[in-house]
Amino acid sequence: MFGRIVMDVRAERFDEPLEERKRAHGKDARDTDLTVDDLKALVDEFKAVVKKDSGRNFPSDPLEQLDLAIKAVFASWFGKRANDYRNSQKIAHDLGTAVNVVTMVFGNMGDDSGTGVAFTRNPNTGEDQLFGEYLTNAQGEDVVAGIRTPSPISQLQQDMPAVYDEFNRIGRQLERHYRNVQDLEFTIERGRLYMLQTRDAKRTAAAAVKIATDMVDEGVISSEEAVGRIEPAQVDQLLRATFDPAALKTAKRIVKGLNASPGAAVGRAVFDADVAVDWVNRGEKVILVRIETSPDDFHGMAVAEGIITARGGATSHAAVVARQIGKPCVAGSSALDVNYGAKSASCSLTGIDFKEGDWLSLDGTTGDLYLGELPTVSARFEDQPELQRILGWADGIRRMGVWTNADKPEEAAQARSYGAEGIGLCRTEHMFREGERLEIVRGAILVANAATRAKAKAASGESLTDDENESVATFDAAMAKLEVLQQGDFEGIFKAMDGLPVVIRLIDPPLHEFLPNLEEQLVKVTRAEDAGGASEEDEDLLRTIKSMHEQNPMLGLRGVRLGLMIPDFVKVQTRAILNAQIKVKQAGGNPIAKIMIPLVGHVNELARTRELLDAEAKAVESKAGVDVDYKFGTMIEVPRGALTADEIAREASFFSFGTNDLTQMTFGFSRDDAEGGFLLKYVEDKILPFNPFQTLDDAVAGLMKIAVDKGRATRPGLEVGICGEHGGDPESIAKVERIGLDYVSCSPFRVPVARLAAAQAVLAGAAVRDK
Amino acid sequence: MFGRIVMDVRAERFDEPLEERKRAHGKDARDTDLTVDDLKALVDEFKAVVKKDSGRNFPSDPLEQLDLAIKAVFASWFGKRANDYRNSQKIAHDLGTAVNVVTMVFGNMGDDSGTGVAFTRNPNTGEDQLFGEYLTNAQGEDVVAGIRTPSPISQLQQDMPAVYDEFNRIGRQLERHYRNVQDLEFTIERGRLYMLQTRDAKRTAAAAVKIATDMVDEGVISSEEAVGRIEPAQVDQLLRATFDPAALKTAKRIVKGLNASPGAAVGRAVFDADVAVDWVNRGEKVILVRIETSPDDFHGMAVAEGIITARGGATSHAAVVARQIGKPCVAGSSALDVNYGAKSASCSLTGIDFKEGDWLSLDGTTGDLYLGELPTVSARFEDQPELQRILGWADGIRRMGVWTNADKPEEAAQARSYGAEGIGLCRTEHMFREGERLEIVRGAILVANAATRAKAKAASGESLTDDENESVATFDAAMAKLEVLQQGDFEGIFKAMDGLPVVIRLIDPPLHEFLPNLEEQLVKVTRAEDAGGASEEDEDLLRTIKSMHEQNPMLGLRGVRLGLMIPDFVKVQTRAILNAQIKVKQAGGNPIAKIMIPLVGHVNELARTRELLDAEAKAVESKAGVDVDYKFGTMIEVPRGALTADEIAREASFFSFGTNDLTQMTFGFSRDDAEGGFLLKYVEDKILPFNPFQTLDDAVAGLMKIAVDKGRATRPGLEVGICGEHGGDPESIAKVERIGLDYVSCSPFRVPVARLAAAQAVLAGAAVRDK
Repeated sequence: MFGRIVMDVRAERFDEPLEERKRAHGKDARDTDLTVDDLKALVDEFKAVVKKDSGRNFPSDPLEQLDLAIKAVFASWFGKRANDYRNSQKIAHDLGTAVNVVTMVFGNMGDDSGTGVAFTRNPNTGEDQLFGEYLTNAQGEDVVAGIRTPSPISQLQQDMPAVYDEFNRIGRQLERHYRNVQDLEFTIERGRLYMLQTRDAKRTAAAAVKIATDMVDEGVISSEEAVGRIEPAQVDQLLRATFDPAALKTAKRIVKGLNASPGAAVGRAVFDADVAVDWVNRGEKVILVRIETSPDDFHGMAVAEGIITARGGATSHAAVVARQIGKPCVAGSSALDVNYGAKSASCSLTGIDFKEGDWLSLDGTTGDLYLGELPTVSARFEDQPELQRILGWADGIRRMGVWTNADKPEEAAQARSYGAEGIGLCRTEHMFREGERLEIVRGAILVANAATRAKAKAASGESLTDDENESVATFDAAMAKLEVLQQGDFEGIFKAMDGLPVVIRLIDPPLHEFLPNLEEQLVKVTRAEDAGGASEEDEDLLRTIKSMHEQNPMLGLRGVRLGLMIPDFVKVQTRAILNAQIKVKQAGGNPIAKIMIPLVGHVNELARTRELLDAEAKAVESKAGVDVDYKFGTMIEVPRGALTADEIAREASFFSFGTNDLTQMTFGFSRDDAEGGFLLKYVEDKILPFNPFQTLDDAVAGLMKIAVDKGRATRPGLEVGICGEHGGDPESIAKVERIGLDYVSCSPFRVPVARLAAAQAVLAGAAVRDK
Repeated sequence: MFGRIVMDVRAERFDEPLEERKRAHGKDARDTDLTVDDLKALVDEFKAVVKKDSGRNFPSDPLEQLDLAIKAVFASWFGKRANDYRNSQKIAHDLGTAVNVVTMVFGNMGDDSGTGVAFTRNPNTGEDQLFGEYLTNAQGEDVVAGIRTPSPISQLQQDMPAVYDEFNRIGRQLERHYRNVQDLEFTIERGRLYMLQTRDAKRTAAAAVKIATDMVDEGVISSEEAVGRIEPAQVDQLLRATFDPAALKTAKRIVKGLNASPGAAVGRAVFDADVAVDWVNRGEKVILVRIETSPDDFHGMAVAEGIITARGGATSHAAVVARQIGKPCVAGSSALDVNYGAKSASCSLTGIDFKEGDWLSLDGTTGDLYLGELPTVSARFEDQPELQRILGWADGIRRMGVWTNADKPEEAAQARSYGAEGIGLCRTEHMFREGERLEIVRGAILVANAATRAKAKAASGESLTDDENESVATFDAAMAKLEVLQQGDFEGIFKAMDGLPVVIRLIDPPLHEFLPNLEEQLVKVTRAEDAGGASEEDEDLLRTIKSMHEQNPMLGLRGVRLGLMIPDFVKVQTRAILNAQIKVKQAGGNPIAKIMIPLVGHVNELARTRELLDAEAKAVESKAGVDVDYKFGTMIEVPRGALTADEIAREASFFSFGTNDLTQMTFGFSRDDAEGGFLLKYVEDKILPFNPFQTLDDAVAGLMKIAVDKGRATRPGLEVGICGEHGGDPESIAKVERIGLDYVSCSPFRVPVARLAAAQAVLAGAAVRDK
């Protein structure tokens, strides 16, 4: 109160005389050890501080004191901390504050007095019962000071039943009034209950969900309000995998560090970022173990399941990057002695050591690192009926559809169980990569250009050389094999999403991604040459890799460009999709195919691709003797595509924003290069307010708005969605709601989050309109 | 006439009976060798063709013939060729055509008859005198058939002075009427002159310039019209370097091929694209010699001075690409026998051979390849007073300034002599590359990150380790050396551009561009390891190169990002610029400095850089004891920069569009990768109407318009220019005139072209407004 009254004296200035007085009573002395004389002397000393710092005497007129106290509260509105807080919470600075002047009450006036804090419901479980603690014959300070052990609030029912009942009744009334669980402070003075403070209670995710549904059932809040009460992050939390509690009981904990980025991760220990990349390329899962990380380790962090460091706190490079890229991380495990040379580490406390390749289980939520491969349990959606009820209400509110990005039948099925209403992005790249396929694809790529040129030559009536005929034969054979395999993939996906739309994106990445790494092949061939000579095959492969090498592959031969240069990619994928559709339909299913072309910047790219595709569809139809039915659309992910969306909409029956690439190109950022480097600094130094790959940038959103408006000007009712990673980010979902998109598409495990966020985006919009 | 009358008979169908008749008179027989009987029989045969092909008899009623002939002319409007022509020339299809029906006149009715063609002025030199040829007692066919040698038109003055005078008078009258030099066809029938046709005459660049200025002097056309009459390409042609005619007389010509892309090029023979790149990296100039080229050769073509191929015509890969990238090219030199294995070539006709490394001189304008290093002569601007007069008139018309992109004093001086009114882009990269500097820069780069981190640590009050102190010392020493050298560079440029603005762009490229190539270093280290062990220095260098390697360097750590990560680059360059300015000013000069930041996408990037720069400027001021004066601006070359130009204009006092990067990012095209690959096909297949790196794309121009409007909304009168390559392209200049830019900046030798094009853009705008 002193500090508050005399504005120009900092509260800490009173600590020193107080501490000095206490020290005279021993080093562990408490405030209560001070004698009356001590306190009297202290008052003088405090007054001296006031005089010294403020240049005036402490006022002895109570009204003057009150006046200064009131002014101090008002003045606190302008303090730096309050200012920063309002900025961070986007609270208007001209809103002002209020001062209530009340009589002091005392909880330390005997055993019929007391004080305590309580929640109107259990903030951990959500159970509808008072939860808290209190002390008889005590003031609030006593609870905080921890001298006496408080009793659970249920004890109050024994001690003062009438007060307890009244407290319970008032709590319930406050709950109804504020329409939310309350966090209460109270004092009992000589049997009379005084409420000191009430505010909405913080709660766990599980409690939030239970409380919200209970309150709807009790008629306290509407289902809309219940939807508004859950944080999207809480939904995420409820669905995040954790280690199996049974397994944890017997797990060998190596070390405990800072819980820097939440989540459970299992993988094999590696001590170097390059090694991490190598191992992951070989199909291993890894935990990256470092003394500390630097931007040079980013590529290893990006591929690791989790990261643990011996040094650095919650704002260390490892911690910040891990949170940014959503990887579990334990930082600052100072007991861990990491030896890069020996590729091993040991804990000085537990004595447990491990070496490269050993299995580790890392809990970023708790900060624990365990030895071995612990089983994880996913928090099962079907076991959470309250969450499902809330998301059901959300479904009734939201305007946008929630679709998913899924490449495989099992992912599609999981997303569907989470409530996905379609596939907004089925990438076909993995269909070229998995298992035996990569070899087939490489075989095709090595002759793709030659075969395509030969086919063009043959089409113009010229006859082919033997070499040319051979490339065509080799290429076609490989592509035919791929077609069969891909058709099977598409059948699986159509079955999993029966009756729901499936947006299939034709192959997007540059072909050299399917070939061995240039540097590795270069070293291999150089080594072989030094040792006497490289094989012709290796030399050939190196030559092909070099000829396909690009300065900036992100802006090179990929997406729609690929299909225009090597039309067989479009043809084979089209046939595989449409034949899969026919087959599933003939088996009684309802497959809904939407074919999507990536990286379109000019309407002619789409028009030419559409010609190719329509011709192939006709061929499939006439061969199968049935009609095929598909929608043809495009991604909008190149700025020029967005800027000319009116032209592009002539050829596309739907748009889907690829906001990852759109962000890269609009900013001129290569995500790969930026996130481990300058972007980190940009966000740290507030050059950018946030990482635009996590939350949609406003300028990118503005460009999307231009595209939506132009697209719908050409084609009213044009279906427009988003399939970039932003589709699963609540803040971005709110932004695309305002742009008027039809759906968001996100990874399966983000679907519940997106259902909630999409509903909240509608509620926020309604709130803005109501103002 | 037959073909025209009977629409459904192709004209060629009459050739066969005609040829057969002629063959009967010997294999070299002419039309005139046919007898009357032959002609009578031929008429019957022609009628049979008509009957056979059209199903009806050839009409014998002259009125019906006339009617059909008229209809045929009208119908020709819809023919494919006419249609294509209108499309290519952007002529409206609904414009229609006219038919004039006139009496036939005959030039073969005796020696007082004749026929000829003539220009009202000499189309080669522009000299104001009739130029052409004629034949007495002849029809137009006879001139074309080449049986008789026509006389020069001056002979007509001797033969028929009255007719000549009349012809001269009519020619002059037509010239006045059409206000242009005319290309005339005429017939004299028994002493009476008939004008058959008149049209504007085609002419050489030199003639165009002379005629235009003469006509202004004669009062025939206004100076504005004169400006409109010259094609920008003609200005370019008048200034293009050619081989010294004196040297050509004794030059050894190796071979003559197709003149596929104009210009003179001198360099050393290389037979492989990779070798070309290697040699150029070593500072050599090369001529790439190939049997034919493919997309795999693009990187070699891009660095070569010129290209020659043994195979392929005017539309071969070599020819198309060379024209696209503006390199002289001789294609299809079929007498040249190229031996890749022996790295040599020889001409089967001249017997001259050459091998890798030999000097060659290639004339793409004529198709000649010479042995040796021939001297070139630039067509001197100061020797072309008519051209200068026209550009002077253009200067009076144009609204936009014409500035130049020049990095060195000599370039600046040349551009200034061409009329440049400022430097719109002074790149500072070469200041890091030339001579001894590259080694200094590499030394700085190797410790740049460590030194920057150490400086930040020291700034926060922590003490540095010995290693850290050493990196700071090494880095600062290197940067200090660079500062001295750069200040000298800037002094030279300020002097050359005394009194004119100089826009200096701070360093832009990613730092790894200054380091050795990753692949080369990798091979070097691998080889050394195989041979027993690489030096620590080489291993270190490889490690640094790897750590700085980027997936997509165009979108990586460069431009403004570089200065924010390593502030010393901004500081050193700022000091060098401002101290140079002070020095030149103190020597009595008037240096006008404008500092420009590249690659800005977010206003905060610019704000932070400005803080750095302003602080450094203050330091320079206080050290020198004088005020410094500079403008601070930004490039707009990232889509986000354009989209948020209203925010960016808060910090920038001028904008300059970097349309190369803006085109790359708006399209999502890496120019390096696209131009040798898919972009070539895109333009060939008309997926894109033109190469957007040569002529500004309309969507990119639209984005620029957004930026200009937003920028000027924040800062009325904001100065906006363009410094991408489009700044020297006439079509692009017309587009940026419409956007309202203040100036274009282009390479020195394009300055005269740009002066003309900027004036024509104003005239075109006025014409549009007049409509």
